[in-house]
Order: sequence, then structure tokens, then C-alpha cells
Amino acid sequence: MPESSVQELSNDDLPPTPDFDSYPVPADVVEAAVEAEGSQLRVVWSDGRVSRYHAIWLRDNATDKENLNLDTREQRSDITALPEGIAITAARVEPCGALALRWNVGSVVSRFHPGWLYVNDYSNGAAKVAVDVAPLLWDAETLPEPSTFDGARILEDDVVLEDWLKAVCRQGIARLRNVPCDEGMVARVAARIGPVRDTNFGHVFDVRVAEGPGSNAYSTAALTPHTDLPTREYQPGLQFLHCLRNDSAGGQALMVDGFHLTQVMRDRDPQTFRCLTEIDWPNNNRALDTDYRWPSPVIVLDGKGEVRELRVVPFLRAPLALPFEEVEEAYRALRRFFEAVKDPRYQMRLDYAPGDLVVFDNRRILHGRAAYDERSGERWLQGCYGEREELLSRLRILARQRRARQLQSL
Amino acid sequence: MPESSVQELSNDDLPPTPDFDSYPVPADVVEAAVEAEGSQLRVVWSDGRVSRYHAIWLRDNATDKENLNLDTREQRSDITALPEGIAITAARVEPCGALALRWNVGSVVSRFHPGWLYVNDYSNGAAKVAVDVAPLLWDAETLPEPSTFDGARILEDDVVLEDWLKAVCRQGIARLRNVPCDEGMVARVAARIGPVRDTNFGHVFDVRVAEGPGSNAYSTAALTPHTDLPTREYQPGLQFLHCLRNDSAGGQALMVDGFHLTQVMRDRDPQTFRCLTEIDWPNNNRALDTDYRWPSPVIVLDGKGEVRELRVVPFLRAPLALPFEEVEEAYRALRRFFEAVKDPRYQMRLDYAPGDLVVFDNRRILHGRAAYDERSGERWLQGCYGEREELLSRLRILARQRRARQLQSL
Repeated sequence: MPESSVQELSNDDLPPTPDFDSYPVPADVVEAAVEAEGSQLRVVWSDGRVSRYHAIWLRDNATDKENLNLDTREQRSDITALPEGIAITAARVEPCGALALRWNVGSVVSRFHPGWLYVNDYSNGAAKVAVDVAPLLWDAETLPEPSTFDGARILEDDVVLEDWLKAVCRQGIARLRNVPCDEGMVARVAARIGPVRDTNFGHVFDVRVAEGPGSNAYSTAALTPHTDLPTREYQPGLQFLHCLRNDSAGGQALMVDGFHLTQVMRDRDPQTFRCLTEIDWPNNNRALDTDYRWPSPVIVLDGKGEVRELRVVPFLRAPLALPFEEVEEAYRALRRFFEAVKDPRYQMRLDYAPGDLVVFDNRRILHGRAAYDERSGERWLQGCYGEREELLSRLRILARQRRARQLQSL
Repeated sequence: MPESSVQELSNDDLPPTPDFDSYPVPADVVEAAVEAEGSQLRVVWSDGRVSRYHAIWLRDNATDKENLNLDTREQRSDITALPEGIAITAARVEPCGALALRWNVGSVVSRFHPGWLYVNDYSNGAAKVAVDVAPLLWDAETLPEPSTFDGARILEDDVVLEDWLKAVCRQGIARLRNVPCDEGMVARVAARIGPVRDTNFGHVFDVRVAEGPGSNAYSTAALTPHTDLPTREYQPGLQFLHCLRNDSAGGQALMVDGFHLTQVMRDRDPQTFRCLTEIDWPNNNRALDTDYRWPSPVIVLDGKGEVRELRVVPFLRAPLALPFEEVEEAYRALRRFFEAVKDPRYQMRLDYAPGDLVVFDNRRILHGRAAYDERSGERWLQGCYGEREELLSRLRILARQRRARQLQSL
């Protein structure tokens, strides 16, 4: 490589990154030393940070043509194609700031983008976080109504879209107002995030009084707050409800932050909490043409013991099949749970006006409603389902587009 | 109730069940005794079985109008509406065979179908199993090719449908042949089971060489066996692939039973198995307009320590962010895993002919392919995704329809 000063080289000389994101360069590599017989690399940065990377990790994330298909940014091969003792034989900092490595196999030189290397420095516990919206737990006092945004131009306006979706991540629920009251609009709004999840209730479902209803939801009955479709292996991650008409008396929506409720329960009544995480309750749908069944605890924990989701619907409970001596305790815990759900201190209450569109995290937020009187007027909501990963993906893309604009304007 | 003999009463006098299924009556209730201050019921059957049920369990599953909406077969109320000390005050066997109970609250009489009670007798460990298809693990020797059925009339033929779907439950994969080679047919076949799951790749995706491919799958490259979309919170449960054209050399499909492979690994290399169940590997898609990320272990266990699913794709692996000293062990375990995946003893190999339609459990079966040569001819598959609960639901409905026909013909 010819001698040249950094000034003569533009950012365009930096190698590609393993993804399509943009990476600022917060510090330069001032030293790169091969260590541990080539199995590790020590990097000293201009801001004083010292990082270490493993040879196998660097090779696995390299963007050279041997490792990566640059059209798709997907790896070409799996790691069995690498020798077990993959080692770095030479390291050099290029004038443009890239780190160039040679290996004990092949002849390829792998070049690394310093901004990408810096942000992925796992030796200092750093990790790239593309979307960082901390969840904010709430009850009726701390969040008496959902964060609300003007949805009149939601099909075009990315700024409102990002604010609205961030509120959903944070509070598990957020509302648009003034969304045009067109039939099917709810699916068009949902598609701003990602694909709609079709179910046996269709692409879009109508929440209104129906002849021979396939669900209690399609009657005027009160509904205890619940999650939708826990009868499936995986409940939908998001639910969208759009009010097209509402002249009826009653029907107020009830929303409960299940993450908050279970946190309080874990502190105050650990026996009930534990029982709700351990007992598989059978959730079966009842229909003529489908028969979904998926037993699950009411509170599902992740591998680290944190609450991952709630799965519970009081009107699709099938016969519990437990050892005889465990049945009464299981019912006692379930009763405690629903007593908490019905406690007004946990319940956000909201009235739907035409044009309101509410989205909520169906694994976190329990939703229900008061009974209503169909003789007093019409009540018509349209709904659809989506997934939580689509929400996160959309937020990352919106953030990526903002970062790219910022880098361009530097 | 007036005196009458059983002979005068038809089966139509039996009360409804809490679902839409049909229940034979294998034995009659000969004695029903209230015990434990009304909190339990002891039932003696004509075949000698003795069962016990709790009052709370019976009340929760009662089909009287107070508890159940008979239009939807969904419960009207949650259990907080019941008194804590719900008790049975009287029990009687009706001439038609129904068990009738009175309670210490209200005036409703709850009547139970004896066939339903018998099959849901949890006190004897019995539980209703609507679909009982035991999984059958396989390797290249025990299942050299998938179970294969004639798909020429799959859109109408329920008998072939049930046989085909049972094979999918059992072996995780099954094939139809002679499916009409119409574009979009794959989604029409999938809709015989349940709704198609749309993704960013569309309702139906085309697996063939594309300009500027959004995925390695849309090139001629070899693909190491993997699961699809582990970048999502929940990978699709089913994948359908329908061959419309195949004149090209190469491109043989590779299928691996991940449940079998991990069972062997658990026995022979428990350290690697454990590492693969504990380390979160980041799976990130790479695209311009979506950015899905969902870190997960390669082997996901359920609450009982059994393998629930595999989540792994070698070409969407993002930078591992672990404590420095754990990185090399994580890569070692991943290498062992892929070495096993590439071992021909685990790989079913199959050639696609036009009209072949393969469906497999995307959480259990790893699928890949050999490279192929686009100059030798065209290769075009169409695919779509579905869910495992739809498969189980469809099998239950097909079985329910068969049972109903059997009962009618008795």
C-alpha cells in the first residue's frame, strides 16, 4: 500500500460494514498488535481505549469477498469452512483508518471499518444498541390515558410514526387520533410497521355485534382484560384497534399494564406469582371450524427469570388437568390474578371516538371493555394483529435513516 | 323432575358440553356423593372407576346459562364472580345419564354430560387428547426420503390431507407429488391448514435467482441447513416449498431432523449441548428496509428441559457480544453443531420435481440445499409460511368430523 496521508483519503475508502448501517468514527486506531499466537488482536484507540478481539470473531464478521456476499451482506459460508486454529498473521492500520488483517489460511486481506469495530468492542462490554427505548411501567395514576398523536397523515408522516412507535415500546400502548374513518384503514396503518398477521378471524376483524358471534368479543358483553389468542403457540405481539363509529352508551376500554401488575405481585405475593409461572392453564378456542389449544402459564418467564409475556383469557379456559391435590391452589392463584386485573388502580380507562386508533403490545397489555347497550347506538371497531419484531425493525430503520442524514450533513 | 326410565330419554336430552366436540358415554354414573363440606364430588361409574372432582373445577366448566354463552361456548364471567367457598349442596343423576348439581349460591342447576366428565377425569390422571401423533425422530438411514402422498386433489381431498398432516406431525416433514404447477398454488394448499403468515418476503416468495437478491436464498449458492427467520421473535412454525420448474443441475435439498441431532448431541457431547442452550447468538437480517434482530440460543429448551425448537442460520449471524473469556468456547460449540448438521448421516437428500410440494416444521427441521448451476436450466420454487397450531387445529377438526360421523352411524 502506498504511503499517503489520511487527509488525502475520503471516508469512501473505508471498507463496507457487515450490515447496511452507517458508522461514525469516534476514535482512530493508533496501534494493532497480534497476540496469543495470532488468536487475539489488541487495539489501542486515539481516545485511550484498549480493545481486544478474537481471531475467530474477526474472521466471522469480516467483510471480504470470501466471507461475505456484499449484495446481501450475508455470510457466504459457515464456520466449519474455517480451520480450527484460525490465526492473524499480520495487522496494519491503513491511511484511511481501516484495520487490515492477514490470516494463516488463504491470501485474502480482511479490512475492518474502525467505526464498526469501535461500537462492537465486546472486550469492554460495549454492544451496539440500535433501538434503546426503556420500558416505563404504569398504572391508572401514572398513565391515566395513552400517549396520543395526530394520525391524520400517519400514512405519510415518518416523524409522527417514530414518536408513536417509541411510545408503544415505552408504555406498551399509544393512540392516534383523527385517523380517517375508512374501512380497512387499520391494516394500512399497521402496514406502515410491517406485515399484518392473518388469523382465523381474517386479515381485519370487525368488533361489533354479530349474528351467531364466533367470539364473546362480537357481542355487547363486558370483557375482563385479557390477551388475545393465547390459544396459539405464539400470541400476536401487537394488536391494532380503530374506531369507525361509536354512538353507544358504555363499552369503555380497560387497559392494564401486565408487566407492572406482575412486578407488584412478585414483590407482595410471591407464592401466587410463582404458581402463575408454573401451572400450565389450558387455553382452547371454541369454534365449529377451528380448535386451537395451547396450555401455558399465565405469566411466562424468560431464561433469566424476567417476565416475558402474559397469556391469559378468562373466557377460553378449558378443563384444567392437574394432579388432584394441586387444583385448588391453582384456582386460588388465578383468582388473585384476576382480582388484581379488576382493581381500578391498575386500569387505564378510555373512550373510543371515531378516528381513534390504539395499538398495544398484546403480550404485555391486558385489554378489556365494559358492557355496552346496542339499543343506544352503533359501536364499530376494526382490528388487526402484527408482531413486536416488526415494530423494532421499523424503529431501527427510521433511526438508521436519521443517522445517515446526520452523517451526510457533517 | 318427573320419574321416567332411561329408555324414554334419547341422547338429545344430555346437556351440552363446553366445546363443540362429540362425546361417547363409555360408562354411566351410578353414584354421585358430595364430600369435604361440598368442596368435592365423588363419582362412581358403572365400569367400576371412582372419580373425584373439585366444586371450583366443576363450576368453572359448567355449561349452564349463567356460566357459559352457548352461542360461542365461551365463559361469561371470570372466576372472581364466584364466591371463594363455592360448594355443591346437592347432586343427582338424571334419567338421561346427566349429572345435575346445585350450589351454595344462586339457584342455577348445572348439568354435566357424562361422556365429557369421564374423559376429563383428572383425578385418575386422564386427560382428553384430541390429537395424539407421537413424534418419530429420524436420520438419513431411517428416513431416506419424506413420506409422500398424491397431491393432485389436495384442495378437495380431506383423507389425503389428514394423512399428509399426520406425517408432518410425526416426522416433521412430508411431501405431496402431482400438485398442479400453478403460480400461487402453494398458498392455496397452505390455506387448507390455516392462514398463511405474511413476512417482509411477501405472502408467497419465489426461490430463484434474482437481480440484487435480498437473501442468499435467491442466488445459486449452497445453503447450510438452517431454520428460516430466527431473526424474528417467533420463527414461522411451518414452511411450504412447491416446485414449479427444475431443469437445473444441482440444488438438491438437504433436510436434517434437529430434534434427533440434538438428542444425540445431548447424550454424546453434553458440554456442547449445554453451551448451545445457554449462549444467546445474535441473528440479524441484513436488508435496506428491514432490520430484524432476535438473539437466541441455537437450541431452545422448554420449561421441562426438553428441546422446544432450533433457531439458527449461518448466514445471518451478527457480532457476538459475550464476556471476552467466553467467546472461544461459544464458537467451539457452534462449530460442533454445524459439523453435525453437515454430517451426511443426518441429512435426508431430495430432488425437487415439478409438482412436488414439501412442508416441514421450521422449528424442528433444518433445511438447506446444494449449489446449482443456473446455466444448466431454470429452478423455481414458491414458498410460504404457516404456524404449527394451525396444523394441530386442522387435525383436530378432521378428527372431530370423523368422530361425529361415527357417533351418527351408531
